[in-house]
Amino acid sequence: MKHLSFLALVQDDLEQVETLLRERPAGQHEATSAAVEHLIGGGGKRLRPALVLLSARICGAAREKTLFAAAAVEMLHTATLIHDDLIDGSLLRRGMETLNARWSPGATVLTGDYVFAHAAYLVSQADSIRLMGRFAETLMVICNGEIRQMFREQPARIARQEYEQRIYAKTGSLIGLSAEAGAILGDASEQETQALRTYGERLGLAFQVVDDVLDFVADEERLGKPVGSDLRQGLLTLPMLLFLEMEPNHPLAKRVTAPPIPSSIVTAAVQAVAASPAIDQALDVARDYSEQAVAALDNLPPSPYRVALSDLAEFTVRRQF
Amino acid sequence: MKHLSFLALVQDDLEQVETLLRERPAGQHEATSAAVEHLIGGGGKRLRPALVLLSARICGAAREKTLFAAAAVEMLHTATLIHDDLIDGSLLRRGMETLNARWSPGATVLTGDYVFAHAAYLVSQADSIRLMGRFAETLMVICNGEIRQMFREQPARIARQEYEQRIYAKTGSLIGLSAEAGAILGDASEQETQALRTYGERLGLAFQVVDDVLDFVADEERLGKPVGSDLRQGLLTLPMLLFLEMEPNHPLAKRVTAPPIPSSIVTAAVQAVAASPAIDQALDVARDYSEQAVAALDNLPPSPYRVALSDLAEFTVRRQF
Repeated sequence: MKHLSFLALVQDDLEQVETLLRERPAGQHEATSAAVEHLIGGGGKRLRPALVLLSARICGAAREKTLFAAAAVEMLHTATLIHDDLIDGSLLRRGMETLNARWSPGATVLTGDYVFAHAAYLVSQADSIRLMGRFAETLMVICNGEIRQMFREQPARIARQEYEQRIYAKTGSLIGLSAEAGAILGDASEQETQALRTYGERLGLAFQVVDDVLDFVADEERLGKPVGSDLRQGLLTLPMLLFLEMEPNHPLAKRVTAPPIPSSIVTAAVQAVAASPAIDQALDVARDYSEQAVAALDNLPPSPYRVALSDLAEFTVRRQF
Repeated sequence: MKHLSFLALVQDDLEQVETLLRERPAGQHEATSAAVEHLIGGGGKRLRPALVLLSARICGAAREKTLFAAAAVEMLHTATLIHDDLIDGSLLRRGMETLNARWSPGATVLTGDYVFAHAAYLVSQADSIRLMGRFAETLMVICNGEIRQMFREQPARIARQEYEQRIYAKTGSLIGLSAEAGAILGDASEQETQALRTYGERLGLAFQVVDDVLDFVADEERLGKPVGSDLRQGLLTLPMLLFLEMEPNHPLAKRVTAPPIPSSIVTAAVQAVAASPAIDQALDVARDYSEQAVAALDNLPPSPYRVALSDLAEFTVRRQF
């Protein structure tokens, strides 16, 4: 997202964060360094660090602490991706091979653990016990969400409410923390802290719904992985849930709710959903979340940084990658 | 170790730590709770929390913070065991089934991650940024050590120095942190902090060497897992290294340095090492480490707690389980 105008305000800081992310701690094994470079160098949108930086500017947090917190949330995000890709057996992310595509499961587990530890180290450098606690709590929420998904009794039949819980745990919680982090570091009022938290959570939900839509309609090359990858793992996301609500007796309905789902069914289901009104309905849900995010900003004083957060929320539901 | 007299001084606190370890954070999935209860309830020696409590008494740290730090190091230790057992494919620990013996690899990875997060949350409650940073650094050392072991080029031919590096990463670092934690929380002088750190590191090395000896000579029922489990994973520990130094041309030498090692060779090698002077030599090394640990205590003022640490170091090399 580096070319996006609303990030110009924190461009210099984002470059400093990039430097922190690429620093190699003493004693780090070469294999780990290569893996981390592969993952961090793979890009990603740096949405989470950008949120930390913008919220910190709004709340007047000290610059150096903010840079560490921004690097920490991106590093934590990276760690969760390593274990996610391992568990899902995904081979591609952002157009590049995942770690588990090249390494043994054991090496991948340990590298993820190491990156978690590095993230915890970075956040400790932000010098805020409160942020540290929130950081740990957020990781607990993320893991709990994934464990809940793994142990659910009827894997495929999920309600909208369960979907929202799941994407909150997966995406809303850490994006919420990223927006909250600047407020914590700037010792903002509880009202402002809560406003930024709400903004981030809602933004995160919007972001994830759009991700889930793109898994049906995106250009695969731009997406960096095949479409239909959620469905291939038996995961029903909002577009499919809305499709099933509209077409409960569709011949594909029984097939997609009984994993494992054969490849031909995945392809047919992706096409059916992509051609249905479910896509627009899902994007409406994302726009609702995005508007809720923007509304939460009313509790903050006007500033160019607040405008940037607002633009970011609008961009999130317009993006195509 | 609850019946051991040198722990009587902190018995009440150890019980409070036990309560903290069994608290179920909000939102924790039932499956996770069952897993954590299984792991925490499985006992373990609680060596690490005991060290935090004793060092905190020596340095006059506040009680509540100390309890959180003590629970945190045990929780971190538990998390590392979950991923270790998964990577090693171990089915038994402390006489009980490991998580991965009952669950999918994915569920085991996530449970380990969750327990890491819980540990980080507990340590944040100890309200010390310095301790938090040391905690994260220690986890990085532990992961690095395991990654190094996994990627080593000649799996079996390791020198004594590499063995010491490995057991420092695996055991010395976290036991060192446990002893250091009380000093950090009590704002002790750098000299006292370093003395407790050295004590813990050396104690950890002694502890691990004895563990490695017991893997050759222990009563399996008391040990809670089969003997020879290191060798079965192709891992050469001190008793075997000393045996190979003495008997470089022994017919078993080539077999144990070329994993995978067949079960019959493991059994024969365990018997050969157990009957050799390598066991006593390894115990001599453990006794050296233990004496170095006790010597480090000279830098601390005399107290019943210091005596307890000294007794603990002596017990470590006498224990048979």
